[in-house]
Amino acid sequence: MDPNSASNLSFILDKPNSVSFADRPVPSIKSPHDVLVGVNYTGICGSDVHYWKHGAIGHFVVKDPMVLGHESAGTVVAVGDEVKTLKKGDRVALEPGYPCRRCGPCLGGKYNLCPDMRFAATPPYDGTLTGFWTAPADFCYRLPDNVSLQEGALIEPLAVAVHIVKQAAVTPGQSVVVMGAGPVGLLCAAVAKAFGATKVCSVDIVESKLEFARGFSSTHAYISQRVSAEENAANIKKEIGCPDGADAVIDASGAEPSIQTSLHTVRMGGTYVQGGMGKSDINFPIMAMCLKEVTAKGSFRYGSGDYKLAVELVANGQVDVKKLVSETVAFKQAEQAFAKVAEGKVIKILIAGPNEKLE
Amino acid sequence: MDPNSASNLSFILDKPNSVSFADRPVPSIKSPHDVLVGVNYTGICGSDVHYWKHGAIGHFVVKDPMVLGHESAGTVVAVGDEVKTLKKGDRVALEPGYPCRRCGPCLGGKYNLCPDMRFAATPPYDGTLTGFWTAPADFCYRLPDNVSLQEGALIEPLAVAVHIVKQAAVTPGQSVVVMGAGPVGLLCAAVAKAFGATKVCSVDIVESKLEFARGFSSTHAYISQRVSAEENAANIKKEIGCPDGADAVIDASGAEPSIQTSLHTVRMGGTYVQGGMGKSDINFPIMAMCLKEVTAKGSFRYGSGDYKLAVELVANGQVDVKKLVSETVAFKQAEQAFAKVAEGKVIKILIAGPNEKLE
Amino acid sequence: MDPNSASNLSFILDKPNSVSFADRPVPSIKSPHDVLVGVNYTGICGSDVHYWKHGAIGHFVVKDPMVLGHESAGTVVAVGDEVKTLKKGDRVALEPGYPCRRCGPCLGGKYNLCPDMRFAATPPYDGTLTGFWTAPADFCYRLPDNVSLQEGALIEPLAVAVHIVKQAAVTPGQSVVVMGAGPVGLLCAAVAKAFGATKVCSVDIVESKLEFARGFSSTHAYISQRVSAEENAANIKKEIGCPDGADAVIDASGAEPSIQTSLHTVRMGGTYVQGGMGKSDINFPIMAMCLKEVTAKGSFRYGSGDYKLAVELVANGQVDVKKLVSETVAFKQAEQAFAKVAEGKVIKILIAGPNEKLE
Amino acid sequence: MDPNSASNLSFILDKPNSVSFADRPVPSIKSPHDVLVGVNYTGICGSDVHYWKHGAIGHFVVKDPMVLGHESAGTVVAVGDEVKTLKKGDRVALEPGYPCRRCGPCLGGKYNLCPDMRFAATPPYDGTLTGFWTAPADFCYRLPDNVSLQEGALIEPLAVAVHIVKQAAVTPGQSVVVMGAGPVGLLCAAVAKAFGATKVCSVDIVESKLEFARGFSSTHAYISQRVSAEENAANIKKEIGCPDGADAVIDASGAEPSIQTSLHTVRMGGTYVQGGMGKSDINFPIMAMCLKEVTAKGSFRYGSGDYKLAVELVANGQVDVKKLVSETVAFKQAEQAFAKVAEGKVIKILIAGPNEKLE
Repeated sequence: MDPNSASNLSFILDKPNSVSFADRPVPSIKSPHDVLVGVNYTGICGSDVHYWKHGAIGHFVVKDPMVLGHESAGTVVAVGDEVKTLKKGDRVALEPGYPCRRCGPCLGGKYNLCPDMRFAATPPYDGTLTGFWTAPADFCYRLPDNVSLQEGALIEPLAVAVHIVKQAAVTPGQSVVVMGAGPVGLLCAAVAKAFGATKVCSVDIVESKLEFARGFSSTHAYISQRVSAEENAANIKKEIGCPDGADAVIDASGAEPSIQTSLHTVRMGGTYVQGGMGKSDINFPIMAMCLKEVTAKGSFRYGSGDYKLAVELVANGQVDVKKLVSETVAFKQAEQAFAKVAEGKVIKILIAGPNEKLE
Repeated sequence: MDPNSASNLSFILDKPNSVSFADRPVPSIKSPHDVLVGVNYTGICGSDVHYWKHGAIGHFVVKDPMVLGHESAGTVVAVGDEVKTLKKGDRVALEPGYPCRRCGPCLGGKYNLCPDMRFAATPPYDGTLTGFWTAPADFCYRLPDNVSLQEGALIEPLAVAVHIVKQAAVTPGQSVVVMGAGPVGLLCAAVAKAFGATKVCSVDIVESKLEFARGFSSTHAYISQRVSAEENAANIKKEIGCPDGADAVIDASGAEPSIQTSLHTVRMGGTYVQGGMGKSDINFPIMAMCLKEVTAKGSFRYGSGDYKLAVELVANGQVDVKKLVSETVAFKQAEQAFAKVAEGKVIKILIAGPNEKLE
Repeated sequence: MDPNSASNLSFILDKPNSVSFADRPVPSIKSPHDVLVGVNYTGICGSDVHYWKHGAIGHFVVKDPMVLGHESAGTVVAVGDEVKTLKKGDRVALEPGYPCRRCGPCLGGKYNLCPDMRFAATPPYDGTLTGFWTAPADFCYRLPDNVSLQEGALIEPLAVAVHIVKQAAVTPGQSVVVMGAGPVGLLCAAVAKAFGATKVCSVDIVESKLEFARGFSSTHAYISQRVSAEENAANIKKEIGCPDGADAVIDASGAEPSIQTSLHTVRMGGTYVQGGMGKSDINFPIMAMCLKEVTAKGSFRYGSGDYKLAVELVANGQVDVKKLVSETVAFKQAEQAFAKVAEGKVIKILIAGPNEKLE
Repeated sequence: MDPNSASNLSFILDKPNSVSFADRPVPSIKSPHDVLVGVNYTGICGSDVHYWKHGAIGHFVVKDPMVLGHESAGTVVAVGDEVKTLKKGDRVALEPGYPCRRCGPCLGGKYNLCPDMRFAATPPYDGTLTGFWTAPADFCYRLPDNVSLQEGALIEPLAVAVHIVKQAAVTPGQSVVVMGAGPVGLLCAAVAKAFGATKVCSVDIVESKLEFARGFSSTHAYISQRVSAEENAANIKKEIGCPDGADAVIDASGAEPSIQTSLHTVRMGGTYVQGGMGKSDINFPIMAMCLKEVTAKGSFRYGSGDYKLAVELVANGQVDVKKLVSETVAFKQAEQAFAKVAEGKVIKILIAGPNEKLE
């Protein structure tokens, strides 16, 4: 296919609650290290929906029309002169954020903390729900033959989970509790198991989500009660048979009561990672953290090696991301798909295209 | 001196706000690994004062009369049959908590997290404001000739600071902010500098404490304003010339506004350690921790190697603990000394004796 | 069963190549923290055979008759007054080395480096090929119902492998090469896989061992050629599809050519662990280590958490240690079993008893 | 000064033992992230001399005439459009190796391991003994006012030492032994002390070097005897009063006997770093490494944060690099200066210019 003669249909957020489709110019390769990718499949993330509904996340405010989407896989249609690792026709998962490569965090191996990051569908940068996308070749990950393009679109949330579980420093034999059984929580549970955790407990307030978690990869599940954080924590410890607490607790919910419960659930000297986003400031059991010498960590997007490992976990069958896909819709159905995600009725919807026929 | 014929005068908390002196039986060496130490000097800690005023700290409640004190140095008067590292006459700093040596944390090198810890002046265990004290030889640290017994009594708070700074993983060239300029905050600043920090900023609400901090070891000082945590943080960053934030922030105050400011002061990917005790639950900027990928850690007492390093820092002249001693009083003046500490008018008071003549 | 009236048949090395059986007095519980265990099964280790043949390993020289054996599982027959974690009848794997709990390494969480370690069947300490054995309760690991006593006897070499793989810091998605496909090499390969390694390559000079390795847990195998270390390394990298080298290389052979090959096989910035014992001094490619910034580590026995994890890996089915057992013989056949191991014809032989009927 | 009208005198290795001066074209800024620097001072490194004498180091062979030199400081004369951190007139230390920024090691924070590194005076890349040099702005480190350009030229070997000491993970209170008292060995000793080591012992075979070391920053010194490595190690342990061995041993000599002694000098569980280059393969006490669970590491050049810290150590007065400068010569005396270094009669010679008047 010739991208020069192709359309570049894009799904655009014009202002809160108002989207449109438009045929934008096909981007061209500007750096010899870049590739041009035809986008095949894109997943919808909670942050996409949040921008759609509210036009902003924190201090990131959508001022001009912005293409949505950042969980994509596609097919390479052209490569820059210096690109040696990819060729036309390669199927790739797209890492959607591009750091400056020159600041302290970049040179120090923490490019996710780069202050000059250009991240897809984070204002003022356009996203990947478009026909063609340019990216540095080292941020495009070739999919092995046994990984489909649909699975490729799920590498992004899986990389989020890989980063969280690495932050939690999960090691074989450990007990891990994951608060929240949405897509990221489910993937955290699966990755924790791939890291050797022998007890993985999902916690949520919705029984159907826990049922899914049990069938996906959790060894235990606990439905949060309307009791104190301490009581919920005591129940979780009993559920997993760890009276001293869990080795690691991951909050993938962002909910205040879950975070409080996390701190009461983790053992002396254990690790708690805040993976989910929520209110800026919450009531927090600081002395539990202090006196138990808990290591608490934030987790922000993904960094060096995370996408690569995510692809391997899918290729090796350690994480079956396909199970998370509730439905795949045509590109022109993007708005309806966003609405379904907003209603919370589905786990993950994929939007096909606009170039799904490239596969 | 013969401990068998000696008195064993002790300073006892009978109930909140009520103390007494009594001559208790001299303890005897029960394990061949133990030594008997005549106590020479003891510092007063905020926790001692808290028990005196309130009879409890958290779920540790004083039910029976309890000897106070846990920051002591003394002179070995007898050693058990298996003791090879100490002999009669050795001057030692006393580590006042004794772990079980058999649980997971103990075998794993984190004995400060031992659930069966017996800690001096923490109910139901008596403290060190007494004539004679038995301890395992490996928890008694011989003082080099150039370290006085008075300095030896300050090894305990210095070990607290060493543990906090280790938790903060301070490395050479870093910028460190310490919230609170009480004894532990001052010692944290000094230890951070000994660990190679090139910028060490003390923060407090009392100007005279900051003045002391500047003369002790801080390179910068900032007096907290009645403004938002974000604004105080911005001011601190300007003060130390670190627009991206400090590499490490230590809260040695336990105060809610200080903790909030800590999270806004630390840089992307930096470390914050909660070293001071305060309210169980506070309003906490959780998203600052999450999105900046801060590593937050608690710090609880001290562990493997901390006392040893504290003694070395004093012996090498890297931390001049003597400067912290506002006054030394006779053993019989213990209650008055506690009152002065409670008033907050002094940095550190030492109580001599009851065996100070042993030196 | 009453240990007081029981016999305590023991298998004793009198001098090199000369063994005998004798009924020694049943030991008694001396510390309230100890338990008395009837020994059910014991594996034979290369070091046992080396003492039998040569009467010494390095500077450990057998001067007086010494009971052999240190890979044992048994049944608790009595417990000390302070023991709360075990009771009569519990089936346990025996960790055979007891540290002092008081030195720097012990307090620092590295008890395997304790200079005062008392280790079974390492002169002057007797081993576990005996009727009854006393041990601190925290060095006896209760076997879950789905782990047999025969498997329990294999926890010791599995703990050796766990320690080696921890030293190698293997993480999910990595490539690991293991030199040597004897019992420890095979177990290292299995543990590396349990730690998430996706490529595990066994290397040996005996094809039948590699065949076993492939069936056990290795994803790749390479038979060493009579070529230079560089050439063997190049072949291994090709075999595993890692042109830049393996993330981690473990030498479980102790053989000079294998160690040389290890250094040429590991990637820039990778890790090499020396797990096998051999000649004191060898010709070593030091500049390969230097210029590739390899992290090289020794591994000595096992430490905190290793036995616990080994039991879990068996209980969870992640390492099928049963497969390694070539044969189980009666206690009175111990000498013949030693001879078979010396001939190198078997992977692992278990000696039943002398109290195998306890099960 | 206008670089366009300036000469660009360069000191060129034409073939082994044959050098010349030539006026090469002034380079131009090719990337908007680059700066153009007039070179003021350059130190001579052993590797420069080795290329001069032998035309090769390992598989790096000088095939075409190559400008020598890579330890330089200079003055910014022009900046690219995107450069925000530097301006004309800034005095800078030049980091002389430029990684690809796109490979696994680069993205992972280990750019010194980049396989596509372009390193000054390493064939086929020219070095810095030239009039003008272009470099990415993030590899040029502004010198504070209290650091001279001569000191700036010594940041390179100091960064080598910083990297070695970081590899050794030296922490406060430790004992460190440094084999070799040449420039890098001396700087390792100074950096170890800045990292808080309380005992720093230099070891060499030349008494005058040890005398210098004592005056520079070593607390102890030991002159190697013609005895076994074990005996020399025993003597060193006695010298530093560490019967169990040193916490860290750094070999900055590359000499076989020193490396052997290193392994016998380090304590159980300690760290040994190979910082000096020498023979590819040596006789190595592998079982000492294995049984003591030593962590052995290579060290190669310098990486993220090393130059920055080196500048700070000089600015703060923690390492007085000026003391190492034996002599400063004019640019046209470069060959004579190389000859002096080759004779081993000096510690460090600086070559002024060709643009020393820029300062």
